[in-house]
Amino acid sequence: MRAVDFYFDFISPYAYIASTQIDALAARHGRRVAWRPVLIGVTIMKIMGIKPLIDTPLKADYLRHDGPRMAKIYGVPYRHHGLTGINSVAASRAFLWLKESNAALAHRFAHRIFARLWVEGRDITPAADVVAEAVALGADGEALTEALASPQLKQALALEVDHAIANGVFGVPYFIADGEPIWGGDRLWMLDHWLVHGSWDGAGAMMLNRR
Amino acid sequence: MRAVDFYFDFISPYAYIASTQIDALAARHGRRVAWRPVLIGVTIMKIMGIKPLIDTPLKADYLRHDGPRMAKIYGVPYRHHGLTGINSVAASRAFLWLKESNAALAHRFAHRIFARLWVEGRDITPAADVVAEAVALGADGEALTEALASPQLKQALALEVDHAIANGVFGVPYFIADGEPIWGGDRLWMLDHWLVHGSWDGAGAMMLNRR
Repeated sequence: MRAVDFYFDFISPYAYIASTQIDALAARHGRRVAWRPVLIGVTIMKIMGIKPLIDTPLKADYLRHDGPRMAKIYGVPYRHHGLTGINSVAASRAFLWLKESNAALAHRFAHRIFARLWVEGRDITPAADVVAEAVALGADGEALTEALASPQLKQALALEVDHAIANGVFGVPYFIADGEPIWGGDRLWMLDHWLVHGSWDGAGAMMLNRR
Repeated sequence: MRAVDFYFDFISPYAYIASTQIDALAARHGRRVAWRPVLIGVTIMKIMGIKPLIDTPLKADYLRHDGPRMAKIYGVPYRHHGLTGINSVAASRAFLWLKESNAALAHRFAHRIFARLWVEGRDITPAADVVAEAVALGADGEALTEALASPQLKQALALEVDHAIANGVFGVPYFIADGEPIWGGDRLWMLDHWLVHGSWDGAGAMMLNRR
């Protein structure tokens, strides 16, 4: 099965919402999903010279309305957590480490971290919390704690982010299917269309005239 | 007929693409469209403290791919014009002035300015070009030229932009229907859904499962 690349950052509400849809969407078209963590806040936005949505006047207000709305649109739970200073560095490194030995567990872990932040409204930044979530799913906590402190794992995530940037990823969720880049949780209709038709002809009319 | 507010800036490729769809989309739902010019580049982005897409690393490359793609999706002509330093100040002021006396002519003028830039790849910045386009549609060129130099018309556009900002508009195209704000040419499916159902429940599943 050809993969659909799904670039995500746990701190993005739109990545969370996409994470609830992407597996089923891809499966309907006989595709698997390659989950690829990136650090949108601490790395990519620096390269772009822009600031987070939530620190951007006007856009921040829209986001506070749009997050719950998008969750309702897709019928998934959502909480505005109000936390500040969160980052996904430890969680993303843990995801990569888990994937090396057990892809299925890593996948459950990713969903779990998203739910912790966006459904339960609990922080995902501290390494200890990240490890506790992995342990609850059956991972080896001591080995993970050790790995999280290692330069190898730090380097592995840095390489993932560099690879994403080389592929043009500048926001999340970001999908690449058959080389076609699609940015945004509001563009799942485009990904869906592409996976059916493999072209863009008439996609807009098709999308607007279905009811 | 209740109006759908359509905020646009002639310099935005996404506003252009939306401009080719919005009238028919609204009409299908028995709505009229209130076309509202804003100055996204010279005013709103300054308030937000962000720079234009085309000056943002990574995003600029995406835009160069996405503009033609979105045009194909909606089946409309599109040209990457490659012009720099363009602004829509004169065109937007002219639009407001025309609307005062002849709304239908102003509407044709707006489509014409969009086409000049995004189909023909010709500049829309010089007041003389803006006046020539209006005259070709039947406007009084002398009166428009005089108006474009007046403080009253300058003030009228400034008020429009302030009004838009007060309503949360931070990008274009931006739609407001029944108080519901929708940003982006990639969200016409949301506007379409809202105008049919007046709610968001299950909109995502409806959109993804139609083929």
